[in-house]
Amino acid sequence: MNNKQVFDFQEGNAGMKTLLGGKGAHLAEMTRAGLPVPPGFTISTEACLSYFKADNRMSDELQSEIVAALHRLETLKGQKFGNPADPLLVSVRSGSVTSMPGMMDTILNLGLNDETVEGLAAKTNNARFAYDCYRRLLQMFGNVVLDIGGHHFEKIVHRLKQEEGVSQDQDLTPDALLRLIADFKHCIQLQAGRPFPQDVREQLTLAVEAVFQSWNNSRAKIYRKINRIPDDQGTAVNIQSMVFGNRGQDCGTGVVFTRNPSTGATELFGEYLINAQGEDVVAGTRTPQPVASLSDEMPAVFEQLVRLAKQLEQHYRDMQDIEFTVEQGRLYILQTRNGKRNAQAAVTIAANLVKEGTIAKEDALQRIEVSHLDKLLHRGIDESVATEVFAIGLPASPGAAVGQVAFDADVAMEWSQAGKKVILARPETTPEDIQGVLVSEGIITSRGGMTSHAAVVARGMGKPCVCGCETIKIDEEQRQMSVGSRLVQEGDWITIDGASGRVIIGEVPLREAEITEELSELLEWADSIRKLKVRANADNPHDASVAKQFGAEGIGLCRTEHMFFSAERLPVVQRMILADDIEERHQALEQLLPMQQADFEAMLTNMDGHPVNIRLLDPPLHEFLPKEKELRKKLDDLDRAGGDNESEKKAVLSLIRKVQALEEVNPMLGQRGCRLGIVYPEIYDMQIEAIFRAASRCIDKGTKVTLEIMVPLVGHVNELAMLRERIDTIGERILGREILERGIYQVGTMIEVPRAALTAAQIAPIADFFSFGTNDLTQMTFGYSRDDAEGKFLSHYVDQKILPHNPFQVLDTEGVGLLIEWATTSGRSIKPNLKTGICGEHGGDKDSIFFCHRTGLDYVSCSPFRLPMARIAAAQAAIAYGYEKTMKSSLPIS
Amino acid sequence: MNNKQVFDFQEGNAGMKTLLGGKGAHLAEMTRAGLPVPPGFTISTEACLSYFKADNRMSDELQSEIVAALHRLETLKGQKFGNPADPLLVSVRSGSVTSMPGMMDTILNLGLNDETVEGLAAKTNNARFAYDCYRRLLQMFGNVVLDIGGHHFEKIVHRLKQEEGVSQDQDLTPDALLRLIADFKHCIQLQAGRPFPQDVREQLTLAVEAVFQSWNNSRAKIYRKINRIPDDQGTAVNIQSMVFGNRGQDCGTGVVFTRNPSTGATELFGEYLINAQGEDVVAGTRTPQPVASLSDEMPAVFEQLVRLAKQLEQHYRDMQDIEFTVEQGRLYILQTRNGKRNAQAAVTIAANLVKEGTIAKEDALQRIEVSHLDKLLHRGIDESVATEVFAIGLPASPGAAVGQVAFDADVAMEWSQAGKKVILARPETTPEDIQGVLVSEGIITSRGGMTSHAAVVARGMGKPCVCGCETIKIDEEQRQMSVGSRLVQEGDWITIDGASGRVIIGEVPLREAEITEELSELLEWADSIRKLKVRANADNPHDASVAKQFGAEGIGLCRTEHMFFSAERLPVVQRMILADDIEERHQALEQLLPMQQADFEAMLTNMDGHPVNIRLLDPPLHEFLPKEKELRKKLDDLDRAGGDNESEKKAVLSLIRKVQALEEVNPMLGQRGCRLGIVYPEIYDMQIEAIFRAASRCIDKGTKVTLEIMVPLVGHVNELAMLRERIDTIGERILGREILERGIYQVGTMIEVPRAALTAAQIAPIADFFSFGTNDLTQMTFGYSRDDAEGKFLSHYVDQKILPHNPFQVLDTEGVGLLIEWATTSGRSIKPNLKTGICGEHGGDKDSIFFCHRTGLDYVSCSPFRLPMARIAAAQAAIAYGYEKTMKSSLPIS
Repeated sequence: MNNKQVFDFQEGNAGMKTLLGGKGAHLAEMTRAGLPVPPGFTISTEACLSYFKADNRMSDELQSEIVAALHRLETLKGQKFGNPADPLLVSVRSGSVTSMPGMMDTILNLGLNDETVEGLAAKTNNARFAYDCYRRLLQMFGNVVLDIGGHHFEKIVHRLKQEEGVSQDQDLTPDALLRLIADFKHCIQLQAGRPFPQDVREQLTLAVEAVFQSWNNSRAKIYRKINRIPDDQGTAVNIQSMVFGNRGQDCGTGVVFTRNPSTGATELFGEYLINAQGEDVVAGTRTPQPVASLSDEMPAVFEQLVRLAKQLEQHYRDMQDIEFTVEQGRLYILQTRNGKRNAQAAVTIAANLVKEGTIAKEDALQRIEVSHLDKLLHRGIDESVATEVFAIGLPASPGAAVGQVAFDADVAMEWSQAGKKVILARPETTPEDIQGVLVSEGIITSRGGMTSHAAVVARGMGKPCVCGCETIKIDEEQRQMSVGSRLVQEGDWITIDGASGRVIIGEVPLREAEITEELSELLEWADSIRKLKVRANADNPHDASVAKQFGAEGIGLCRTEHMFFSAERLPVVQRMILADDIEERHQALEQLLPMQQADFEAMLTNMDGHPVNIRLLDPPLHEFLPKEKELRKKLDDLDRAGGDNESEKKAVLSLIRKVQALEEVNPMLGQRGCRLGIVYPEIYDMQIEAIFRAASRCIDKGTKVTLEIMVPLVGHVNELAMLRERIDTIGERILGREILERGIYQVGTMIEVPRAALTAAQIAPIADFFSFGTNDLTQMTFGYSRDDAEGKFLSHYVDQKILPHNPFQVLDTEGVGLLIEWATTSGRSIKPNLKTGICGEHGGDKDSIFFCHRTGLDYVSCSPFRLPMARIAAAQAAIAYGYEKTMKSSLPIS
Repeated sequence: MNNKQVFDFQEGNAGMKTLLGGKGAHLAEMTRAGLPVPPGFTISTEACLSYFKADNRMSDELQSEIVAALHRLETLKGQKFGNPADPLLVSVRSGSVTSMPGMMDTILNLGLNDETVEGLAAKTNNARFAYDCYRRLLQMFGNVVLDIGGHHFEKIVHRLKQEEGVSQDQDLTPDALLRLIADFKHCIQLQAGRPFPQDVREQLTLAVEAVFQSWNNSRAKIYRKINRIPDDQGTAVNIQSMVFGNRGQDCGTGVVFTRNPSTGATELFGEYLINAQGEDVVAGTRTPQPVASLSDEMPAVFEQLVRLAKQLEQHYRDMQDIEFTVEQGRLYILQTRNGKRNAQAAVTIAANLVKEGTIAKEDALQRIEVSHLDKLLHRGIDESVATEVFAIGLPASPGAAVGQVAFDADVAMEWSQAGKKVILARPETTPEDIQGVLVSEGIITSRGGMTSHAAVVARGMGKPCVCGCETIKIDEEQRQMSVGSRLVQEGDWITIDGASGRVIIGEVPLREAEITEELSELLEWADSIRKLKVRANADNPHDASVAKQFGAEGIGLCRTEHMFFSAERLPVVQRMILADDIEERHQALEQLLPMQQADFEAMLTNMDGHPVNIRLLDPPLHEFLPKEKELRKKLDDLDRAGGDNESEKKAVLSLIRKVQALEEVNPMLGQRGCRLGIVYPEIYDMQIEAIFRAASRCIDKGTKVTLEIMVPLVGHVNELAMLRERIDTIGERILGREILERGIYQVGTMIEVPRAALTAAQIAPIADFFSFGTNDLTQMTFGYSRDDAEGKFLSHYVDQKILPHNPFQVLDTEGVGLLIEWATTSGRSIKPNLKTGICGEHGGDKDSIFFCHRTGLDYVSCSPFRLPMARIAAAQAAIAYGYEKTMKSSLPIS
């Protein structure tokens, strides 16, 4: 490698983040802007990567570049590194491209040793200060570079303070500090098996290597994995001349945010300590002062700080998180970066920055991390309250809920009627638990994945749900559940958080969901920019109303089968399925028809002319029936009960035989979707009739109707052709040709079987729209059963980096995406006005929405609560790809 | 339509089959060749299709063309249609492009009515003949055109013969025949509600329409569906002037094949009747004479027939099926067509025609219907013996077997040891039945599809198997099985035919499989022509030997898991799976290693340098374990038994828990294939070690080794990358770098997950070969679980023509094929020498082999018994697509 690897702060700028890391780039930018930054230099991320490539060895070139930079720094400061007369002291800090915890922390005062410490004492005429600096170096170096547990040093300090009879470090005398230094050196020799290096160059080399190596410590690795940060960025190292906040009462150090990071309010927010060095503020041994009090203690410094904070915010056009130090009344800025903030503050700050004219609307939108919005849009746990996590399961349906635990649907209903709040806990749920789910605040199951019955139903109802909590043993007979030796009795209060999968013992206070004024503004801006339409998946009239409030421009998916699960309908659905002959089935279907019709009518009314996409029945029929295992248990119970129950037993046995006949080896790939509609035409006929009757009633009432009828699981054009003909025939019969010619309905298909995507050019001529069902399309394209994969190999695959992400959360653009592109392109080559959209769970994921925008789809459809995210992500995509933006150019520093 | 719709025989030729139908084209060709064909004309298939399009109405143009053709015919024959003085009589026959049963049969003597019959009697001076002709016309017309059941006419004839006291039709007097005519006319009026048309033009129109309509009768439709004949061909109608084989003792009619259609022997084969008309030969009321006796009865006619037969065979360059009539000593050829023949005859005739110089080798190969070869290559039922079919199930593994039925594996083993032949009948089989399967002649199951355990195991062992015989109720307690009221007791003799799915009561004689000398010759010719290599799927050394005998050029797929099912191994495999810790698992794996090594060594030895492709473990582990249901039953039994069996019960309970933990919702899409190898590396490590140890031993013995290690179910390149690294590492450890550098092994992947095909360009760099696993690829591309689909909606889909074929039998070139083409093209764009093959069951299907040839794959791999078919189909593909053929040009008629 022949590239330059070390850069003085004067040489860099904010644009060199990849090479200098975030911190280094900001220090350089601030230096160039004339801010009071102590001089120093940055070792580049490339140097770090070369170090790894060379099996963790620093090259000779790098070493000499560091020496040269050090020389320049010595010249600038008029001090010499390791010179006892006037020693140059430096700090060493990591600085990766993306800010991340887990990396090596700061080492201060590097350059002190047994000789130079005396020089510092003499030069500052402050022995206590010099010894304090030295013992801090020993402690940090021992801990961070030589990997000695912090408690070893803390024990020594604690003992010494006891001996000295003082409670604060700063009350230790110079003599006591000298003893502390000796004890620390002894401790280092003992724990690290080597002495503290007196050679200051060796100190520096070891510290730089420690920074490099901290890139690969396990905490950093995990953080990167969770936050999808690539492993091959490496970290830079910043070496900066020291300034001292701990030289006396006219010194100090602090951290300040230019705006409130919790609320977003426009106010300086932060804290500082007099006579202290950096880590004291966060260490918690002394209580820092709010930054406002600095205006009393050091008015000139405060005034300068306020001015600089404003300047920095204007320069970086975002809220800043600034570290500062005051040495003998003089203010230094050690670091600035875009401040971390919570979801609410992010929204407020972005909106305010636009209103203040600092950034454009597009900038504000791009700064919103859409995945964080989830927290704003559901009730959440008040995280400031200490909690005891009982178990963690799959985060199956977001939102938090508090209630008394009930172990079956009957108890849940009884308690609910008595006005209690209930959390239903079941090993897994079946359609027979539906009434219990309906009355509960939230659901826990100990078995089942993200697409288990409980998860699907809970998401459909918008109820919090934690699934597959496998550590929990539910004992239905003893009416209790346990994790190890910890017991929860029926009736105990618990709290669940469906966004994180946590189950917590006790009543935890909740935080309400809210769409603030600022969020509303951002959403309006997003709507004016985005190209993708945004629809919602809604299975009932209530969800459709919610969706409209959240900005849905239509219903992208109405899963009619979810209307089958309610208490009064399920028995009719079961009768329909179990019918011995077509006559009996028709009778049951005739009962269902008015129910479905009423639902559809209400949905169409609620959406008032916006498109409503209704999917015909999709799941296999056995999903509506009790499980064989349960029936066998019932039979056993009848056996044990004895007495005259032969006819009852016969009925159960006959039911078992029917359940067996419908049983499938791989239900995911079995008799479902349009395969049902073709083999049992009477079921789809009823649904189609209900849809058109509902449309007819709406039209009579003067409601505008835009209807899309979606045929699920098409794999061959003939399936759609046959069903489209039936739909058109029934439509004409009910509405008459005249109304139909107004074009009030379209017929299309869910593209969720790979073959449908591959043969899209054959399907397009008879489809008005393609709706990509990316859940099933992902399952079939990967050959993954989500129910099986997520609990088993899939987490292993993501952990081992065999897959970059869980493809059910982030759309796989290379495989599944290729099918979507192919289907869209070849479909439109036949029918240019083919409407295309996506209605899987990916419709609410940012990366996936970006993909949909790039691919030129017409809309995305997601759950109502993800609509705000989708609207903003769609705008971000429009801005990122070829959108004609009017973003303001970078403001000059004022 | 302005095209000419009616063609005189002189106008057509053999190349106009699509327009004139097979019969019409041949009549024209013969006419042009100067053969003694009674003159006539053909109404084209286009006329038929126009008739359908016009809602079954004949156009005016067509009617006038018919009239014009009739005039020309009258002129040629010097007779007039409907003229009582010298009436022209004609026959009307259907003639579709592809010969098929179910179409309307011949109507003879059309043109007779109450007047013309008297003219005919006068002209021929033979009233008996004339009345006989008329009553035949009435009968055929009534039956075929007016759709009156044949029994109505037969009853009348029968009654008349009783009254007359005669036994043969020909013994009826003219008076009796006149009465018969009256009765027939009465019968027609009664049954059809209309009189027999005296207008001869109306006769003709009705007969032509009846032919058209017979294209859409149900028998014809079913035949077309089974034989994949398109519905939109339509049929032609041939109208030919009558000659009479029933005018006296110097008349007769017969059918002759130019070679023996059963054996292929080069001899005139057929039969005739003196003084009879066409349908008498096949009607069975009189026993026809073998054609050889014609040399005594009519030596001159016989001599002419022999000469014409030879001429026709030379002209058409194939064995001919000729209908002839002798009228007053003069021979007429009424029809000739390529004769139907059985599989053995087809092979013999094709080979002989080459040797006689009539056709080229390529012609011979193209004439073999490869799907018929199946019958030659397995034992089959002697179809000449009358049988009583008990039930029909899925044809899961071809071949026929006879034995005494046993209802469990223990009985099967006991009887087998006692020297009995056994057919094992089970509701379904599990790995625990393996020993029973091993000792049985064949297997029946009442549940499970073409990929059920029984089917897979039986095909692997080459044993006949009929699966999913759902009509059979097996009663294990009563030791009997039944279909309705018909019972088979344990120990009863039954016969099964795994090629057709038949289960037959009793011992049916079997026909042995044989590769005749002629078939060997054809196979050699095929080998010299085909471009595709042909390999076999073989799971054990024995199958590898069989495969080599059948011409395998390598093993395309060795499913290592099939080696796990044998009696002494399964317990070890189960111990490995159920191991409580890694230590215990390693112990079991160490036991398995030498077993697998020995298998691989024997396979490599048997294949002697030909490539051997070994696939690492593929199925989910639960496939090797007993089912939960069985274990629960065991537990119940222990419960009932009572006594001190607590520890035994505990063991079963613990096993149940482990089985439950491995249970999957969709096992097809679950933890299997390389997902197993990645999550449990120790299993693949053992297999890889066994493979390389076997290779090492072979190399030491001087055996040439060409090894391919195949990683199943890859969906992402990283899976293959990780496993390839392990394979290479273990290979180097065992064989050493030096041997490896000779390139004795390759690593590749099965492309069976759609995503693997889509991302082939990413996978190709680290794969030496792609082997398309079209079974799973079809399942995932269609979203069909074969186990569920075949028993349920798939047959409905094929019946309803939603799908053209069952995609598990015939490769879906539009969807699955697109993935194969994409993967091949994009893989080779990265790695031009990428080896590609197909190893699903499609490897033995003709259309699929044609597709593989077109796509440019390197090889197909199929089960050993399908190799001869594959070799011939591959040659047919090479001939059909761009092969530089040296086929002789059409021979001139001699």
